Amino acid sequence: MTRDQVTEEIVAARLAKGLTWQQLADALERPLVWTIAALLGQHPVPTELGAKVVALLGLDESVIPVLAAVPMRGGLPTAVPTDPTIYRLYEALSVYGPALKEVIHEQFGDGIMSAINFSIDLQRKSHPGGDRVVITFDGKFLPYEWNAATN
Amino acid sequence: MTRDQVTEEIVAARLAKGLTWQQLADALERPLVWTIAALLGQHPVPTELGAKVVALLGLDESVIPVLAAVPMRGGLPTAVPTDPTIYRLYEALSVYGPALKEVIHEQFGDGIMSAINFSIDLQRKSHPGGDRVVITFDGKFLPYEWNAATN
Amino acid sequence: MTRDQVTEEIVAARLAKGLTWQQLADALERPLVWTIAALLGQHPVPTELGAKVVALLGLDESVIPVLAAVPMRGGLPTAVPTDPTIYRLYEALSVYGPALKEVIHEQFGDGIMSAINFSIDLQRKSHPGGDRVVITFDGKFLPYEWNAATN
Amino acid sequence: MTRDQVTEEIVAARLAKGLTWQQLADALERPLVWTIAALLGQHPVPTELGAKVVALLGLDESVIPVLAAVPMRGGLPTAVPTDPTIYRLYEALSVYGPALKEVIHEQFGDGIMSAINFSIDLQRKSHPGGDRVVITFDGKFLPYEWNAATN
Amino acid sequence: MTRDQVTEEIVAARLAKGLTWQQLADALERPLVWTIAALLGQHPVPTELGAKVVALLGLDESVIPVLAAVPMRGGLPTAVPTDPTIYRLYEALSVYGPALKEVIHEQFGDGIMSAINFSIDLQRKSHPGGDRVVITFDGKFLPYEWNAATN
Amino acid sequence: MTRDQVTEEIVAARLAKGLTWQQLADALERPLVWTIAALLGQHPVPTELGAKVVALLGLDESVIPVLAAVPMRGGLPTAVPTDPTIYRLYEALSVYGPALKEVIHEQFGDGIMSAINFSIDLQRKSHPGGDRVVITFDGKFLPYEWNAATN
Amino acid sequence: MTRDQVTEEIVAARLAKGLTWQQLADALERPLVWTIAALLGQHPVPTELGAKVVALLGLDESVIPVLAAVPMRGGLPTAVPTDPTIYRLYEALSVYGPALKEVIHEQFGDGIMSAINFSIDLQRKSHPGGDRVVITFDGKFLPYEWNAATN
Amino acid sequence: MTRDQVTEEIVAARLAKGLTWQQLADALERPLVWTIAALLGQHPVPTELGAKVVALLGLDESVIPVLAAVPMRGGLPTAVPTDPTIYRLYEALSVYGPALKEVIHEQFGDGIMSAINFSIDLQRKSHPGGDRVVITFDGKFLPYEWNAATN
Amino acid sequence: MTRDQVTEEIVAARLAKGLTWQQLADALERPLVWTIAALLGQHPVPTELGAKVVALLGLDESVIPVLAAVPMRGGLPTAVPTDPTIYRLYEALSVYGPALKEVIHEQFGDGIMSAINFSIDLQRKSHPGGDRVVITFDGKFLPYEWNAATN
Amino acid sequence: MTRDQVTEEIVAARLAKGLTWQQLADALERPLVWTIAALLGQHPVPTELGAKVVALLGLDESVIPVLAAVPMRGGLPTAVPTDPTIYRLYEALSVYGPALKEVIHEQFGDGIMSAINFSIDLQRKSHPGGDRVVITFDGKFLPYEWNAATN
Repeated sequence: MTRDQVTEEIVAARLAKGLTWQQLADALERPLVWTIAALLGQHPVPTELGAKVVALLGLDESVIPVLAAVPMRGGLPTAVPTDPTIYRLYEALSVYGPALKEVIHEQFGDGIMSAINFSIDLQRKSHPGGDRVVITFDGKFLPYEWNAATN
Repeated sequence: MTRDQVTEEIVAARLAKGLTWQQLADALERPLVWTIAALLGQHPVPTELGAKVVALLGLDESVIPVLAAVPMRGGLPTAVPTDPTIYRLYEALSVYGPALKEVIHEQFGDGIMSAINFSIDLQRKSHPGGDRVVITFDGKFLPYEWNAATN
Repeated sequence: MTRDQVTEEIVAARLAKGLTWQQLADALERPLVWTIAALLGQHPVPTELGAKVVALLGLDESVIPVLAAVPMRGGLPTAVPTDPTIYRLYEALSVYGPALKEVIHEQFGDGIMSAINFSIDLQRKSHPGGDRVVITFDGKFLPYEWNAATN
Repeated sequence: MTRDQVTEEIVAARLAKGLTWQQLADALERPLVWTIAALLGQHPVPTELGAKVVALLGLDESVIPVLAAVPMRGGLPTAVPTDPTIYRLYEALSVYGPALKEVIHEQFGDGIMSAINFSIDLQRKSHPGGDRVVITFDGKFLPYEWNAATN
Repeated sequence: MTRDQVTEEIVAARLAKGLTWQQLADALERPLVWTIAALLGQHPVPTELGAKVVALLGLDESVIPVLAAVPMRGGLPTAVPTDPTIYRLYEALSVYGPALKEVIHEQFGDGIMSAINFSIDLQRKSHPGGDRVVITFDGKFLPYEWNAATN
Repeated sequence: MTRDQVTEEIVAARLAKGLTWQQLADALERPLVWTIAALLGQHPVPTELGAKVVALLGLDESVIPVLAAVPMRGGLPTAVPTDPTIYRLYEALSVYGPALKEVIHEQFGDGIMSAINFSIDLQRKSHPGGDRVVITFDGKFLPYEWNAATN
Repeated sequence: MTRDQVTEEIVAARLAKGLTWQQLADALERPLVWTIAALLGQHPVPTELGAKVVALLGLDESVIPVLAAVPMRGGLPTAVPTDPTIYRLYEALSVYGPALKEVIHEQFGDGIMSAINFSIDLQRKSHPGGDRVVITFDGKFLPYEWNAATN
Repeated sequence: MTRDQVTEEIVAARLAKGLTWQQLADALERPLVWTIAALLGQHPVPTELGAKVVALLGLDESVIPVLAAVPMRGGLPTAVPTDPTIYRLYEALSVYGPALKEVIHEQFGDGIMSAINFSIDLQRKSHPGGDRVVITFDGKFLPYEWNAATN
Repeated sequence: MTRDQVTEEIVAARLAKGLTWQQLADALERPLVWTIAALLGQHPVPTELGAKVVALLGLDESVIPVLAAVPMRGGLPTAVPTDPTIYRLYEALSVYGPALKEVIHEQFGDGIMSAINFSIDLQRKSHPGGDRVVITFDGKFLPYEWNAATN
Repeated sequence: MTRDQVTEEIVAARLAKGLTWQQLADALERPLVWTIAALLGQHPVPTELGAKVVALLGLDESVIPVLAAVPMRGGLPTAVPTDPTIYRLYEALSVYGPALKEVIHEQFGDGIMSAINFSIDLQRKSHPGGDRVVITFDGKFLPYEWNAATN
């Protein structure tokens, strides 16, 4: 069974059992977004957590080592996402990406925000004009450094 | 003169005059990311602000109405950005986009985070493991609603 | 079973049973275009409606929660549609899109027509030169607003 | 001078002179959307109207025959538009296109909505939840007919 | 069963039974090119004809309503066809398309050749230099007309 | 001067001088479609004809050898044409291409219609339902033959 | 069974039986490259040869008419091939294609090398610097000729 | 001046001076295809040859070092070539590429035909059915070898 | 069974049996990167090694000749890889590729680093700032040489 | 002046002055590959180095701040590089990328090789079979860590 097939089983079993993602995250004691991303195939799921997933969703035990392997990441079916909910994030990147680059360089110097030493969070916040989705990308700044292993 | 040509002039003049984006934002009294995005061609610049831009950067007054027009937005030369600083944002979207979609739907219902009633902010935050780039996408939740103008 | 598989079953069952889309919309008491879009996989179908769909089309009850989940939207197999009936809409967008953008900005200011607070309708109207297809896109105007959740 | 160059001149001259599209449409006595589309290079502009355009915008008379020629149509820089205002139309097409196809076939039979015997209109309509952009695609129904010139 | 699956069955059954397309067209009493296009999934096949197809090719009766539905058209696996026989048509379009556009505009005015009120025919014609494939595209001229349903 | 630049000059000069393509074809004594295609950069223009073109359109004599060279052919700015007049030809190819392939193979055997030993013609033909554009692709049949130069 | 499925069976059966392509070509008494191309789905295989293929590889007789039909040609999974052995041919075309075009035009006039009246051969040739792969493309020259069927 | 600009000058000067590629190759005493490819920007032109090119075509001496630099190779404007003369080579690769791969592996083992230790030649050969274009790709066989520099 | 299917089985069996790639490489007595690449479908696996693979992973013996055939190489699902671990290699190529080209030409002359007479190695090296991944591409320099087989 | 224009001037001036990249790197006292990448527009050039570049190549002083700004990185004109020297690196990535991913994960755990805390080196090494190009990618290992700024 491939990781993609495991993901498909997880998606189906979660709906069939009527479990929320939050319930799964609570059961695994991991952050919500991390949990969903992992169960959608974007992170390895350590063996002890994989065993819990199998138990919660009624999957076969053979999927545990598949879940534990580092997956081939990258979760969008097309380079430009078509789903409106996801597309808005792409649109924000398209409109503000170069500006964010300038701010990073002006405030930190030449470098990037890591997407590896990184977490992402989503909160619902109230506002007089209507509740807001607040998504936080939080990554370590990595300066361009021309280093090499010592010889 | 097209908006693209105005943008190119702004980029060149800012470097030649040695002005920071923060200085420009302060002079215009607008948020930093908004200011950069606008000066890079992603937002109309109201006439009174355009006049300040012209004065600060030594541009011709004829660019003021060009800056004031709503531009054709979308600021990336390729669908998948190649610049590493911008790419990391795309990578985060590629890895976590479907998970964010699930969280939005679980916490708000069917709908999207607006990219129009929206702001974006970037802060430098300290951390024992190294300073972090914290980017906040903050958009109003818009539920799918099947409405029509009253007839 | 994935949502795509459910859609395929719905398409096949509707033809086999000889039901019109209008009959399905009437049975669900929802607008016609919304009903078709939802049954083609573009909207979640609430549980009570999903149960009716299952009864009408003779599907397995296990599809009800799959129908109730918010789907990954976006219904075209290629970025530029190849089907002539759908392509004409794309062509109209290609020819008139920038003009519509200008009208929106001139009449409303900087912003967009929402595709979320939105409905779409199609009417047959008579005309001396032949009956006409009249499609109405009806979306709330959303002005660009730089808002953030209160801190 | 190519049609693209004429379009660029028109766009610049309109902004420099501070004319609205509505003023141009009124002066040409043509519908608003048609006028903008034509001046953005999507329709030929008959000689007498071209002469008015030249006078209104202060262009060279040599552009009149260029405006009068049937242009190479298609006004989007990329297959999937990046500008948010235009993108929402594409998104609506992506989400509802197959449903519209089904309605056309169910109500008219096999055929298409013409994009040639066609007009498009945009109205601002009030609504308790906020003013709405109402766009009407209005095209003659063309049934698939297997005809040939008489031999 | 989807239309694509029905097409695949038709292709296989025709070869297995050793029937020519001409024999099928004769049995259906429809033009040859129309018949092949329809059986390859590009046109709806009316119920009475679908019943004949089922009888001729030994298919299951359940495919009749699938054949009768208006299909999602567009029959090439890639935007630029790779098969040499089909590619030559694309090449002719690539080399002569803009010239044909000019002739249409010079002889008919602004408009198009309809691909809906349309037929296509292929004849073998003799020539001293070798027999020739003569393909005739025959479509009604549709002038650009800015019409709308009742004003 | 490149061939593309010569083409652009020809297009501009023709409009400025108010000449029809037919007048140019008559002056060159060549078929209409061939003439337009050649002047749009798709065929070499023999020196004696190039001299006539230069005289008719008031171009510099230095363009004659550029016109006489075999050009890099292929006249569409995108793989899928966006101009509606040209697109309809592509659409016909997309819908009927595989059917035409089958007819060629059934009537001629394995091979192609040449696009080199080839001509294309466009006629206006009357029809009770409205005048029709009739385009004839006429190419020599070339059978697949596994030949090699004699050794 | 589709031609693609037949190809897959042939590939598997050849490996399982340990037959070389040369043995298959010898058995069919056809040129080696033609044989491989045909068995990989690029040429129709006449019935008598198809029967031999079936016997040699232990396939079902029902594949004979599938092999005998003219296939949809074009054998690369991506427009730019990724396999290094095949890519080198594409690279040679990318580097030398325009030069070959110039030689053809200078030595033959305006026209092409046919890929239909065509054969291709590959020989191993010795050389002091190491054995060489020598591939010969051998196609009839086809001059551009503007011919039409006699009326 | 960039290499692309030098190439454009060479192309224009050759036509203006009426020189054949063969005359240029003879003057440079290099093979014909190599000469054309080099002058079209695909190979560095050694200084002494560059000086001859400058003299023959009347270019400025400053282009000599530009010609002598190793260029960025790859000479096709699109991944799939549109020019019919060049396309036939791509088509042959598309139809016969996988077969050539099989022959190379069967006759030489695992490896490739080099496109670097490589030459290409084009000859006109007579044939009863019409003269033929014979193109020879001649590259050293390079076996896959897992070698590393000695440590 | 195709090579892709064999690869999928190998990936699944390795995880199910809990074997490391290093254990497989040790068992096959081949370099680690070569072993993984080969088992992921990028190199033929000689029969004696294939037999070991079958024994180690519990596969069917029929896969041995499939493993021994030269595969269709090229291991990325998209032209630009989406997996972050692989993407960083692409990013390095995007940023430094043209510079590496210049160094090769300045130090070796016109030519390439072979990817065929080639090995690749990955080592973990310590560094005060954190352990480093050191990847060595080691390929024979191949100078551009215009050679042909002796006639 | 844009960074791209500065790059073009640097490329031209280096050739005109006959300077090697090594001479420029020595003058700037920076590593060779870094120097070339920076001068080709991939890294900011600090002001003091930029002044040296201007002096060495005879450029205008106004380019110094342009060189000092962080550039928009990504140096390939197409997603798949066409130049053979650069392509071989892409090919190696295509063939060995997934294998390198597996080695990184097996030896380091889940994470990536940084392309930011990174250097790249190219050495000429002798070998009995011919000198070799040895390229070393040397990047810090970054483990996936789900961190956030302290709140």
